[in-house]
Amino acid sequence: MNKIPESQILVIFGASGDLTHRKLIPSLFELFERKLLPEKLLIVGVARTRQSTDEFRKSLHASIIENGKTYATDNPYLENFLRIIYYIACDTTDGEAYTALFREIEQLRNAAGIDDNILFYLATPPLMYPVIPRFIQEQHQNRSTNGWRRIIVEKPYGRDEAEARHLDRLLCDIFPEREIYRIDHFLGKETVQNILVLRFANSIWEPLWNRNYIDHVEITATETLGVEQRGNYYDSAGALRDMVQSYLLQIMAFTAMEPPSSFEPEAIRNEISKVFRSLRPLSREDICRNTLRAQYAAGSTNGQKLPGYREEPHVNPQSATETFVALKLYIDNWRWADVPFFIYTGKRLAEKRSEIVIHFRNTPRTLFPGQCCGSSCNQLVITLQPDESIRLRFGLKQPGADFEVRQVSMDFFYKSLTSTRLPGAYERLLLDAMRGDSLLYSRSDALELSWHYLAPLLDDWEREKDEGLIFYPAGCTIPREVTRIHGHPYILDESVCSLR
Amino acid sequence: MNKIPESQILVIFGASGDLTHRKLIPSLFELFERKLLPEKLLIVGVARTRQSTDEFRKSLHASIIENGKTYATDNPYLENFLRIIYYIACDTTDGEAYTALFREIEQLRNAAGIDDNILFYLATPPLMYPVIPRFIQEQHQNRSTNGWRRIIVEKPYGRDEAEARHLDRLLCDIFPEREIYRIDHFLGKETVQNILVLRFANSIWEPLWNRNYIDHVEITATETLGVEQRGNYYDSAGALRDMVQSYLLQIMAFTAMEPPSSFEPEAIRNEISKVFRSLRPLSREDICRNTLRAQYAAGSTNGQKLPGYREEPHVNPQSATETFVALKLYIDNWRWADVPFFIYTGKRLAEKRSEIVIHFRNTPRTLFPGQCCGSSCNQLVITLQPDESIRLRFGLKQPGADFEVRQVSMDFFYKSLTSTRLPGAYERLLLDAMRGDSLLYSRSDALELSWHYLAPLLDDWEREKDEGLIFYPAGCTIPREVTRIHGHPYILDESVCSLR
Repeated sequence: MNKIPESQILVIFGASGDLTHRKLIPSLFELFERKLLPEKLLIVGVARTRQSTDEFRKSLHASIIENGKTYATDNPYLENFLRIIYYIACDTTDGEAYTALFREIEQLRNAAGIDDNILFYLATPPLMYPVIPRFIQEQHQNRSTNGWRRIIVEKPYGRDEAEARHLDRLLCDIFPEREIYRIDHFLGKETVQNILVLRFANSIWEPLWNRNYIDHVEITATETLGVEQRGNYYDSAGALRDMVQSYLLQIMAFTAMEPPSSFEPEAIRNEISKVFRSLRPLSREDICRNTLRAQYAAGSTNGQKLPGYREEPHVNPQSATETFVALKLYIDNWRWADVPFFIYTGKRLAEKRSEIVIHFRNTPRTLFPGQCCGSSCNQLVITLQPDESIRLRFGLKQPGADFEVRQVSMDFFYKSLTSTRLPGAYERLLLDAMRGDSLLYSRSDALELSWHYLAPLLDDWEREKDEGLIFYPAGCTIPREVTRIHGHPYILDESVCSLR
Repeated sequence: MNKIPESQILVIFGASGDLTHRKLIPSLFELFERKLLPEKLLIVGVARTRQSTDEFRKSLHASIIENGKTYATDNPYLENFLRIIYYIACDTTDGEAYTALFREIEQLRNAAGIDDNILFYLATPPLMYPVIPRFIQEQHQNRSTNGWRRIIVEKPYGRDEAEARHLDRLLCDIFPEREIYRIDHFLGKETVQNILVLRFANSIWEPLWNRNYIDHVEITATETLGVEQRGNYYDSAGALRDMVQSYLLQIMAFTAMEPPSSFEPEAIRNEISKVFRSLRPLSREDICRNTLRAQYAAGSTNGQKLPGYREEPHVNPQSATETFVALKLYIDNWRWADVPFFIYTGKRLAEKRSEIVIHFRNTPRTLFPGQCCGSSCNQLVITLQPDESIRLRFGLKQPGADFEVRQVSMDFFYKSLTSTRLPGAYERLLLDAMRGDSLLYSRSDALELSWHYLAPLLDDWEREKDEGLIFYPAGCTIPREVTRIHGHPYILDESVCSLR
């Protein structure tokens, strides 16, 4: 395995932007240093900024150092890496400019003796997603008879079902579906991929992985940060679009899906879509009872005062955008009927943590004193960040006379597996796209289905605005109203908090 | 819970012996220090040696210090503890002597204002087991209308089915079955008891705990020591009697039994007997194919030369006694049909280790490259000693691109549960007997059934003598011939060894 990609040109649109500098180039350098890139590769940065290739390389050099990918400015790999990078200034809103762009790319390609394979990366603001592919098409660069064309589209992929579908139609008109890579960098994380390996490389979990043995599942992604400098984008998106649609529903699908017939991308994506198709549609009543949106108000953490969301820069001071979402949802299939899946995500909470907790059902009989009543001793906790780990909680006897039971846990930490750091998400995803492996990218039907599922909620919240929006103090563990939708009194311990 | 026993007198026969000094008294002191003993308690040591109570106390004082139960010779608990201990010299082979013995006990009892409860402990050589109870009966001290009488009998409980049954008939004639405590100090170990808690206080193991998901089970107890000073006893017993009959079959029963209806001793003992009743009888062919006996020859460990078994003190130089046993056995019930249970035990092996390894079956499909083929990634390892722990082995992805699977493990160590040491086996068992809890003692039917199961093997080995006995070098990992009965090529790795 670990196949090296074919010779190709990677064209990054939005090359002067933050994403390119902070994520893409440092990740590509990491791959380069680990010798995973093709021997014949050019990386061509495209943006409006007037600058020379030399200037571009210098700014990338600084970014790589800054992002900690190397500590030595005289790292010989770094020089060699920068030598495969070129910059072409181009006004990408002007169709005519593309003629010159592709002429230059063609020259670079010929000079380097590279096959006719081009991978486009749209690292631009979303409003350019429909524009650039059209101009690529006008130049007949959307297909090639001698090689391939692929395109990677960054998040957010539309802001509702209609937009996502529109963008999709347009892209599918231009590129074949299998060549469209809709990125979600969360899916590039080792621990997310490990959900699949944990489930399907082991025989012990699958027999338990269903409604007979699982009581409920919690999927949590909390952050301590507020919106930071992203107020502009975030205020029009909100937590539901920013986290639930694009990430947490995907995690849920990995957790809930049936065993695929093979590990081919299409086989897995089929199973993901099946999960989305089985989601119980959100009725009016479900929206009232099983969903919750909240926004952070002013608060504090460790004695440090934190502003409320409405006071953040670039945020509408009357904004009704949710920064916290709780959902209770059901997957109406044989495996999961009546097993609630809880999704929680929010900003400005007490802890940064992404995890999946499988709560197993209690034993049918309580044989021992001290055995947890009502709840079960057994939980499987898959922590995606910050300390990537797997933890199994179970009951053992308290040492000493008698058979008092207490909960203990076994842990596995990913960092114990490797002396070096875990590969970053973008490294994995870029390499996969270069190799033509779309497993960790979203397929259009899954995207549309997840948008479709959330549509009633998006509509309702759009319509209701302030009505029903609750507030929580920045820095709190979790808004206390969550207990209302959870219904399980034992879950959220005592650490919930509220403004009252 | 943690009920304090009723006021009583503990009478230890064999009070000047090794067991009393090394195990019983130090354990009783530990219980005393932890305030688990009744406020009104006398401990009466009985033996033939002429010595005063003061002399007896002094020798116990030394033993307690020596066995590490306290490091302070001026520990105030120690003085108080020794004050409840008395010594009565008595020739226990002489029936007449018992009159005086019980008169003295009665005087002590009255002086201390203790209820009429007596717990007898037979810490004598086995040949005294039938003798002492008879003389107790002659003194009408086997029952009491105002209180109770109980008797603890040490291992070995007979040396075959006939002897065990004979001893049992005799004891049951004298004491009611529920008052006879057949000790097996291994069952007093926390980790052995935890097999039951692990299985029945958790919902996640039981669904997997059967022939659908378990491929085979291994129960191992290896020692690095040879026979030491026990040559006399051991040469007439052998590994099958010393370890398999009395201990490993019991461990197997804990591992294999059905969930009991309650945690009452009788309910559990019923399940243990059911397992023994389901053991597939050993046919002639089974004995040839599925059993193995071996004896250690001279060898070495860490460069140190070790003598062969036949060169050990008090061992017959032509001895055919086995010091290693391997068994493959089947439990013919719905849960375990066709799942082999392997039992290995031996002396003078490379490692001291007692553990149960549950080998789960492989996944029905192999989806990932690198996934163990033929064998499964999944094992649950319950280590009883030396480092009491539970380990779950499973497959996760190798960090980096692709989905290579490798085996990792999660561990739980008992020592993490408590800052102090785990209570010793004898502490637990003595306290249980004082409280009248027989759960961790063997019931007569289970004992007889286990003897009955092993009878064809005992007979065969008795008859065949040297024939079929194989030899392994002292200090080796495991005799290589074991692979023959295991049949699973993947289990014993490369560390087997032989004399060839």
